[in-house]
Amino acid sequence: MGSFPEVVELNVGGTPYVASLKTLLAEEGSWLQETFGGVSAPSDLPVDSNGRIFIDRDGSLFRHVLDYLRDPARYALPVGFLERDRLRKEADFFRLAGLQELLVKMAPGCITVGYRGSFQFGRDGLADVKFRKITRLLVHGRVALCREVFGDTLNESRDPDHGGSDRYTARFFLKHVFIEQAFDMLQEQGFRLVGSCGSGTAGSVSENLKPGVDTEENRWNHYNEFVFVRD
Amino acid sequence: MGSFPEVVELNVGGTPYVASLKTLLAEEGSWLQETFGGVSAPSDLPVDSNGRIFIDRDGSLFRHVLDYLRDPARYALPVGFLERDRLRKEADFFRLAGLQELLVKMAPGCITVGYRGSFQFGRDGLADVKFRKITRLLVHGRVALCREVFGDTLNESRDPDHGGSDRYTARFFLKHVFIEQAFDMLQEQGFRLVGSCGSGTAGSVSENLKPGVDTEENRWNHYNEFVFVRD
Amino acid sequence: MGSFPEVVELNVGGTPYVASLKTLLAEEGSWLQETFGGVSAPSDLPVDSNGRIFIDRDGSLFRHVLDYLRDPARYALPVGFLERDRLRKEADFFRLAGLQELLVKMAPGCITVGYRGSFQFGRDGLADVKFRKITRLLVHGRVALCREVFGDTLNESRDPDHGGSDRYTARFFLKHVFIEQAFDMLQEQGFRLVGSCGSGTAGSVSENLKPGVDTEENRWNHYNEFVFVRD
Amino acid sequence: MGSFPEVVELNVGGTPYVASLKTLLAEEGSWLQETFGGVSAPSDLPVDSNGRIFIDRDGSLFRHVLDYLRDPARYALPVGFLERDRLRKEADFFRLAGLQELLVKMAPGCITVGYRGSFQFGRDGLADVKFRKITRLLVHGRVALCREVFGDTLNESRDPDHGGSDRYTARFFLKHVFIEQAFDMLQEQGFRLVGSCGSGTAGSVSENLKPGVDTEENRWNHYNEFVFVRD
Amino acid sequence: MGSFPEVVELNVGGTPYVASLKTLLAEEGSWLQETFGGVSAPSDLPVDSNGRIFIDRDGSLFRHVLDYLRDPARYALPVGFLERDRLRKEADFFRLAGLQELLVKMAPGCITVGYRGSFQFGRDGLADVKFRKITRLLVHGRVALCREVFGDTLNESRDPDHGGSDRYTARFFLKHVFIEQAFDMLQEQGFRLVGSCGSGTAGSVSENLKPGVDTEENRWNHYNEFVFVRD
Repeated sequence: MGSFPEVVELNVGGTPYVASLKTLLAEEGSWLQETFGGVSAPSDLPVDSNGRIFIDRDGSLFRHVLDYLRDPARYALPVGFLERDRLRKEADFFRLAGLQELLVKMAPGCITVGYRGSFQFGRDGLADVKFRKITRLLVHGRVALCREVFGDTLNESRDPDHGGSDRYTARFFLKHVFIEQAFDMLQEQGFRLVGSCGSGTAGSVSENLKPGVDTEENRWNHYNEFVFVRD
Repeated sequence: MGSFPEVVELNVGGTPYVASLKTLLAEEGSWLQETFGGVSAPSDLPVDSNGRIFIDRDGSLFRHVLDYLRDPARYALPVGFLERDRLRKEADFFRLAGLQELLVKMAPGCITVGYRGSFQFGRDGLADVKFRKITRLLVHGRVALCREVFGDTLNESRDPDHGGSDRYTARFFLKHVFIEQAFDMLQEQGFRLVGSCGSGTAGSVSENLKPGVDTEENRWNHYNEFVFVRD
Repeated sequence: MGSFPEVVELNVGGTPYVASLKTLLAEEGSWLQETFGGVSAPSDLPVDSNGRIFIDRDGSLFRHVLDYLRDPARYALPVGFLERDRLRKEADFFRLAGLQELLVKMAPGCITVGYRGSFQFGRDGLADVKFRKITRLLVHGRVALCREVFGDTLNESRDPDHGGSDRYTARFFLKHVFIEQAFDMLQEQGFRLVGSCGSGTAGSVSENLKPGVDTEENRWNHYNEFVFVRD
Repeated sequence: MGSFPEVVELNVGGTPYVASLKTLLAEEGSWLQETFGGVSAPSDLPVDSNGRIFIDRDGSLFRHVLDYLRDPARYALPVGFLERDRLRKEADFFRLAGLQELLVKMAPGCITVGYRGSFQFGRDGLADVKFRKITRLLVHGRVALCREVFGDTLNESRDPDHGGSDRYTARFFLKHVFIEQAFDMLQEQGFRLVGSCGSGTAGSVSENLKPGVDTEENRWNHYNEFVFVRD
Repeated sequence: MGSFPEVVELNVGGTPYVASLKTLLAEEGSWLQETFGGVSAPSDLPVDSNGRIFIDRDGSLFRHVLDYLRDPARYALPVGFLERDRLRKEADFFRLAGLQELLVKMAPGCITVGYRGSFQFGRDGLADVKFRKITRLLVHGRVALCREVFGDTLNESRDPDHGGSDRYTARFFLKHVFIEQAFDMLQEQGFRLVGSCGSGTAGSVSENLKPGVDTEENRWNHYNEFVFVRD
C-alpha cells in the first residue's frame, strides 16, 4: 500500500478537488480504490505543477463521483439532472457499481397518466357540490417503467399479454384514484411533468340513458392527460 | 477552546470558502460549532497544502450551509432549488436543526387546484359583460400538504373523514374564490406551476332548466386544472 | 478617510472579487461606502491569507451587488432570476436603497390574463376568412400587481369597490384587445408565462338568436387563460 | 502604441480572463481597442496584485464580450439566454457595435401562432384517413416583430392599415400552412414556445350545410394557439 | 515531435484545464493534434504567467472539447444543451470531425406528434372499461427530421410526393400506436416536449351511423397535439 496523506489534493481535468483518503478508498474494486489503496505509490501518479494528483476526466462531473463515495446509500442526483449520460461514462470509468446501478435504474423515459373525469353531486344534487370525480387513473408507457414507478399500486388485469417488459401498453391503470398520489410517486422516481392537455365533451343526453343515472355525469365528461419525463 | 483566527479559510471538497469564526459558531450543537468552538485546536484539523482547513463534504452545497448560518431566521432556498435531497444530507452531517426543519417542511410534493367556471353577465345581460365566474376553488392532494399551504383558507367540511394526514383527498376547497390568491400562496410555499389543462362543455340547454336560471351559465361551463409541484 | 488603493481586492465568503474604489463608494449611506470611505483604515478590516479584504457574505450573490453599484440606473436582474429572496437579504445587509426598492417593486406574484374569443368572418362570410376575434382581455390577480403591470391600459370600471389594493379581483380588463401587447407588458415587468389552458363550446344555435347576429360567433366560442408568474 | 504582450491577462471584476492582444484589438472604435491599441502603456492601466490588468465590469458577462470579439460574424447567444439586458450594458460600455446591433435585433417580445384545424378524409371517406388539416396559419403580435421573424412568408393582405410597425395586429397570416415551418423560423430567431392551448367544437351539423361540403369538417373544428417568447 | 510532458496544463481564455497529452493527440487532423503532436515545441506556444499553454478560445465550452476527445464514441451532449451553436464554432476551430458531425446531426428543429383518440369499451360495454384508444399517431414536421427520429417506424405511404427532404409534411404517421414509444424516440434524439394542447368534440350521434358502430366512439373524440423541440 502506498503512503498517501489523509487529505489528498486532486486536479481533475483542470478543476481542483480535495478528498480524504478514506473517501477515495470507499468502494472496493473501484478505480480510485485501486489507485490510492493499491500498488501505486504517490510518486507513480501524474501530478500537475502544484503537486496535485492529476486525473484525466471531466472536472465538473467529478463532484458527483465524490459525493457518491462519501455516502453511497443516500446519494441522490439533482432533480432534473441533465448530464445523466455523461455521468454514466464517469461511473463506468471509475467502476462505481452502485452509481452505475442507480443510473441504469433511473434511465430516461416517459410515462403518461390520464383520467376521464366527471363531476360529482351531493346527496341533494345541490348545484354547489361539484367535485372532480375520477373513476380510473390510466397509465401508459413502457411496461418495465410503469412497474418501476407504480409497483404494487399498478393494476395490470386488463393487459393479460405478459410479453416482454420492453413493450408498451395503454391498458394499465392504478388501484387507487388519487392522481396527486400518482404524481408524487412519479416525482420520487425522478420524473417531472412536461406536458398536459385536456378535452371535454357534451354527449347527447337524451339517448342511452339508463334509469337512475345522473344526467350530468353522462353529459359532462373530460379527459385530461399528463406527460411525465425522466431525463 | 481553540485559538482560531477571526477569519477562517476552509477547503470544502476542493472549493475554497472563507467565513468569520462567528458564523461558524452560530448554531449551538452543530458540527461546525463543535469543531471550531470546542476541544479542537487548529492544529488538530486536517488542512490542504495552502493551510486551509479541510472539510470532506460537497464544495458546491456548502454555500447554502454558510448562508443559513449567517442569518438562520431569514434563510431562503433559491426558487426551484433542485438539490434539496442533497442539501438535506449536508444539514444532517453538519447537524443544523433549523435547516433540517426547513427542508422537512418544504418537502417535495404536488397539489392540484381546479375550478369549474362559467361566464357572468351584467344586469342587462349585455353581450360585452363577460367575466370569469368561479363558484368554488377545488384543492386536491395529500391532506398534510394542502393544510400546510392553505392553512385557514382551506375548507374541509366536505371531507369529514379525518383520517391520517398522509392520505390524499379530492374534496377540499377554499373559503374564497380568487384563484390568483391560491397561486400566490402556493408560490410562497415554494411550489411552481408545471401543468395546466382545461375543458369546456356545451350542455343541452333545453332540459332541467330551473326558472330564472341564466341559460348561458348552464350551457357554457369549463373545468380548468393547474398542477403545482415543489421539487 | 482611509487610504484604500484604487483597485480593491475582496474575498466575499470565499469568492474573489475585484472592484474599483469608486464603485465601492458609489452609494451614499451603504455599508460599502461607510466601510471603504469612512473611518476605517485598510488595516482595520479583516483580510484573508492573500491580503484580500474579507466580507462575510454569500460569494455568489455579491456579483449582483457590484453590478448594481457600477450602474444603478440601468441595473437589471437576470430574466427568471431565482434568488430574489436571497438577494433581498444582501441588499438589506449592504443597505443599497435602490436595489431594495427594485426588489420590492419586482416582488413575486401572479397574474392571469384570459379572453373569450370567437372567429370573425369577412364581408361575404367566406369560409377562408377566419381570424381570432377578442372582444375583451380579462385581467385577474392582486389589484396592486395588476396596476403595476398594466398602468393606464387597465380598465377598472367594472370593479367599483376601491378597497385595499391587496385584495384580488377578477373584474379588471384592458382598454385594448391585443393580447400580445399584454404579454409584452408582463414580460417587461419580469413575469413569465407558466401555464395556459383553453376550452371551447358549441352552443345551441337555434335559440336566443337575435336577428342579424352571425351564427358562427354564437356557436363557436372559446375561453383561453394564461397564467403569468414573477418569481 | 503601447507595448502589450501577445497574451494579455485580465481581471474582470474578480474573474480571471486571458486573451490574445489580437482579440482585444479586433473591433475598431471599441473601448478595448482604444485601451490596448491606443495611447495607454501597460503601466497606465490598473492592475490587481498578480499584475493582471483590471477591468471594473461584471466578471461573468465578459465571457460573451471575448467570444464575440473572437469571431463577430458567427457570434451566437446561448439559447434562452437570460441576461440579455445585462449584456446590452456591457456592449454599450465596451462600445461593441456588432453586439449592440445583435442585441437590439433580438429584443424581447412575443408572437402567437394559431390555426383553426379540421380533419381531412381520403377519397372514400375511410374512417382511418384522418390527418390534421390547416387552412390558415394565423400570426399575432407586434407588426415589426412578425415581419422580422416571418419575412417573405408573411401575408399582410388582410391588415391594410399600414400604420406604425409598433402597433399590434391579429390579422396577419402565413403564405404556407406548415406550422412546424413557422415554429422552426421562430426558433431560429431565438423564440421559444412557452404556452399552448386548444379548444374544439362540435357545431350543429344539420344547418347551413352547403351541398357537397363534408359534414365532418363542419362538425369537428378546433383552434390551437401557441405562444412564443424571446427573453 | 515536440517534447510535451504527459500532463499538459492549459489556460483556455482564462479558465485552467489540465489534460493528458494522449487526450490532446486523440483526433488525427485536429488543431490540438497538430499543435501538440506536430512541429511545435512547447517553447513555440504562448503561455500565461504561470507557464500554462494559452489557447484563445472560450473557457467554458472547452470542457466539451476535452470530454469529446477522451471518448469520442460515447460523447454525449447534456440534455437541453443551450450552447449548440457556440459549440459548433469550437468544433470548427479545433477541427473535430466527429463533434462537427454530431452537432450537424443534432441540428435544431421541431416535430409535432398528434393523435385523434377515442375511448374503448370492453366486450360488455361496461362503463368502467374506458381506455384511451389511438388509431393513428400523426407526425408533422420537416421530412428529413421526421426520418431521422422515427426511421423504420415511419409510414410515408400517404405522402407520395417524394420531393426534397427539406420540405414539410403533415401526412406522415407511425406504424405503431404507442405514443409513449414515439416520445421515447424523440427524447433519445435530443428533443424535449415544449407544448401540448387538446380539444374534444361531441359529434351528433344520430346521423351517419353505420350499423354495429359503437356510438361512444363516434360521439366522443379528441385530438391531442404535442410539440417537441431540439434546441
